[in-house]
Amino acid sequence: MDGRPAMLAIVGDSATGKTTLARGLVDALGATRSTTIDVDNYHRHTRSERAAQDLTPMNPAANYLEVMDQHLQLLALGQPILQPVYDHATGRLGRPRLIVPHEFVIVEGFHPLHSKVARACFDVTVYIEFQEAARRMLKIRRDVHRRGYTEEQVVAQLDRRERDAAAFIRPQRAHADIVVRFAPIEERGEGISDPLSATVLLRPTIPHPDLMAIVNPDHQKAIHLKLLRDEDGKPVDALHVHGYAPAEVTRQVQEAIWAQLGTERPLPDCLGQLGPAGAASPETRSEPLAVVQLLLLYHLVRFRNEPRT
Amino acid sequence: MDGRPAMLAIVGDSATGKTTLARGLVDALGATRSTTIDVDNYHRHTRSERAAQDLTPMNPAANYLEVMDQHLQLLALGQPILQPVYDHATGRLGRPRLIVPHEFVIVEGFHPLHSKVARACFDVTVYIEFQEAARRMLKIRRDVHRRGYTEEQVVAQLDRRERDAAAFIRPQRAHADIVVRFAPIEERGEGISDPLSATVLLRPTIPHPDLMAIVNPDHQKAIHLKLLRDEDGKPVDALHVHGYAPAEVTRQVQEAIWAQLGTERPLPDCLGQLGPAGAASPETRSEPLAVVQLLLLYHLVRFRNEPRT
Repeated sequence: MDGRPAMLAIVGDSATGKTTLARGLVDALGATRSTTIDVDNYHRHTRSERAAQDLTPMNPAANYLEVMDQHLQLLALGQPILQPVYDHATGRLGRPRLIVPHEFVIVEGFHPLHSKVARACFDVTVYIEFQEAARRMLKIRRDVHRRGYTEEQVVAQLDRRERDAAAFIRPQRAHADIVVRFAPIEERGEGISDPLSATVLLRPTIPHPDLMAIVNPDHQKAIHLKLLRDEDGKPVDALHVHGYAPAEVTRQVQEAIWAQLGTERPLPDCLGQLGPAGAASPETRSEPLAVVQLLLLYHLVRFRNEPRT
Repeated sequence: MDGRPAMLAIVGDSATGKTTLARGLVDALGATRSTTIDVDNYHRHTRSERAAQDLTPMNPAANYLEVMDQHLQLLALGQPILQPVYDHATGRLGRPRLIVPHEFVIVEGFHPLHSKVARACFDVTVYIEFQEAARRMLKIRRDVHRRGYTEEQVVAQLDRRERDAAAFIRPQRAHADIVVRFAPIEERGEGISDPLSATVLLRPTIPHPDLMAIVNPDHQKAIHLKLLRDEDGKPVDALHVHGYAPAEVTRQVQEAIWAQLGTERPLPDCLGQLGPAGAASPETRSEPLAVVQLLLLYHLVRFRNEPRT
């Protein structure tokens, strides 16, 4: 590999789609050019030790975050790391895994933007949100059906985790270059059985593609750009992509964004998959997801073309 | 901790006394000021995987040596590491261990001087040898009595390991500041039931204490200094400490070496223990071991008093 890898952070609460987002990027970049790392493996304790101390995995005290920071620095310099491994099936700490950074390093988890040292390792950072009612419903459904919990147990766990998500995960939103919110459009009477729409906040912390020239009034219903104030009062560009956006419209927008890179590679056609690779069908595709993934790809490829100094 | 830790490497084949040597140093320095790390934990494989590939643990290919090098660099800079753990009882790779370097970092294992990068991390390096016949006899006795092997099995393993020790461990002898050889004095008809004598080669790669002024003719039988040529033909100071050296003579020599440090701390009185701490008796003490430990302590303390630039 020439030069340093391009580093992307994907941060968010559990069940917000971090892994789905990352998978599309790896499909597009190729497994030999990209490296993914889930930093929720830096657990200090086994599941039972954590329970005995009443810690959630979101609590920094439950993790070797100083080692995570160190490993992010090493990866950003192109060096290998021996990543600790937490086995989510057994709740135990197992044999570590050698990770060698390729051209593109995609880091997902609860804490990648927790410290200043960690933030300095990334070239592009994204924070994912999910409409909370929808996220809770999906998590309850999954844990009751697939993991043998009662609904009361899942709700109790959600409430405990909500406190730590507010304290430790959501503050990282302020440090993301891009904030994505997936949600049904309630004003139109949509619920979580409708395809989710995405609101993408593009902060002026990195050079985004010129969307003013790309998103035109013809696309108004499917995709549009608005200037608004973020929760913190700061001005920000907001790109809305409707869940029912037709694939041909988002394709046009993606082509135009991709063209701004000036690359000879064709636009990847594997974006927007909700299920595992190869399972393409209308129900397993999300046009908003495809647009978000393309924006992230744009930044990763841009960085490798014009590396930081 | 102010400044960088003082780093000592102890290298040698198995059953040469690396751990015994290190234990005395930690007893003398105190557990809160010293950190020990056994780098034979950087195994890439479990025991059964290694057997399937016909690899000994001495083979660099069986280890994450590039990660070991990285971790030694981090420790030398005073940074913590998450050390991988190989469980010698089960032959499996287990949960890692956080290691925070204190003032003195003592590294033992098969490969600490394997690479130039690793060697550059140390302030003093020692290679331990053991008369081979004695080492084999001790290893066979231990493995047959305590680990349920037949003598044939242990001998077969020894022959296989001998090939890799020659290829990968012994070349590191050339990079040590100090080479220690423990052996009975055969010319005097001694065997391994006699207390072992030590020959300590002091290479001019670091500033040793002025032994010419310390070892005087009165000590001749117990301890003496000779100028000789090493196996490689290079001139070297050789300090001989006899296994039957009286404690009061080695004590005088130790006091004189310690005085050259100009430290106010008293000479540690816990050196030379062959068994675990607290089990002091004539049979569990070795005067040659005490002198070797004091020489290493001298260099560790000297380095912390006058840190490298």
